[in-house]
Amino acid sequence: MQDRARATRKILLESAAHLFVERGYAGTSVNDISDHSGKTSGAIYFHYSSKENLALAVVREQFATWPQMLAPYAAPGIPPLEKLVVLSFGIARSLREDVVARAGARLWAERRGIEAAVPTPFDAWALAATRLLAQARARGELAAGVEPSAAAVALVCAFFGICTLTDELPGGRRDWRELLDQWWTLMLNSLQAEPDPAALLARARARTPVQL
Amino acid sequence: MQDRARATRKILLESAAHLFVERGYAGTSVNDISDHSGKTSGAIYFHYSSKENLALAVVREQFATWPQMLAPYAAPGIPPLEKLVVLSFGIARSLREDVVARAGARLWAERRGIEAAVPTPFDAWALAATRLLAQARARGELAAGVEPSAAAVALVCAFFGICTLTDELPGGRRDWRELLDQWWTLMLNSLQAEPDPAALLARARARTPVQL
Repeated sequence: MQDRARATRKILLESAAHLFVERGYAGTSVNDISDHSGKTSGAIYFHYSSKENLALAVVREQFATWPQMLAPYAAPGIPPLEKLVVLSFGIARSLREDVVARAGARLWAERRGIEAAVPTPFDAWALAATRLLAQARARGELAAGVEPSAAAVALVCAFFGICTLTDELPGGRRDWRELLDQWWTLMLNSLQAEPDPAALLARARARTPVQL
Repeated sequence: MQDRARATRKILLESAAHLFVERGYAGTSVNDISDHSGKTSGAIYFHYSSKENLALAVVREQFATWPQMLAPYAAPGIPPLEKLVVLSFGIARSLREDVVARAGARLWAERRGIEAAVPTPFDAWALAATRLLAQARARGELAAGVEPSAAAVALVCAFFGICTLTDELPGGRRDWRELLDQWWTLMLNSLQAEPDPAALLARARARTPVQL
């Protein structure tokens, strides 16, 4: 019975995510989610109590928490700046390919039209980036003069812009990987104590987030 | 009579911008704009024909066109990378302080809920940045290996992220100037043939967009 409830919640969450990506928050009704999921409106209210709460559950499911973000800290031996780059590739890929992550991003963009405080991942990203930059500094791998927490905030904001604008730019759709590569090349050149962005990016591309 | 029509259009545009910033597109009705502007709904339909068209007029008024963007090209003697930085300061300031620019940005963020193609400034920004980087290269002021158009696209995306996330970050509101300074310090270090971000930023801060 508990398994069945968990399965229902998962189906509702994924149906809602799909519809939020396609139609946005305001354009999606509880009835739409009922039709798409094959579950009754009653089941939606029973499990999530309101459309707002279901939307918040979608945001928390991945966008606002990003549990896989924490894994890289545990892996020994991988240079911290390389971890940071791999992490960014993983998040960027999710924001392109994972419907729950994409729904979270769209709901965040529409947060001012939602009657609830939509949680964000940015504090967690900035904290993770600060730690990795501080680790790089401790290993002598960070350029002199780079202050981890200030640089981390700038990195997070810029990274968010790269993820958000990929499809909005000149010449139509750009490949997000190329754009991210280009941006990291410029950034790493300033961040690395001994700049060699091409080598670091090649090593990062050879890894996947799962490997970390 | 033509002056009066122009004055009415201006009042309607500014009232609409104010309401779009405060309540968003979906949360603002033609009646709200009528109440706020002191003009009749009839006047709104006469001058702009629909809420969509009025919204598009707001976006085009500044966000999508940014006429002051073109001025810097004409000024001789100022190094192109410095123009680029001053330009970014001017746009960032507008996006904080100018109600029409802020309305344009919010309408763009809500574009998927508007039944019309909302124009964007990103192509124009990328083109302007590409030209300035190419000028820097021609003057021997761009670092070897930086490709103007690819770097320009990365700069525009990252700059958009900086402007958008300033208020969303750790520790509450950050000063957008500090964040932009921090980001440019990292970027200029990679862009300048002879890196000296602090000196360039000090010169840029001493100018205003109007001076260009």
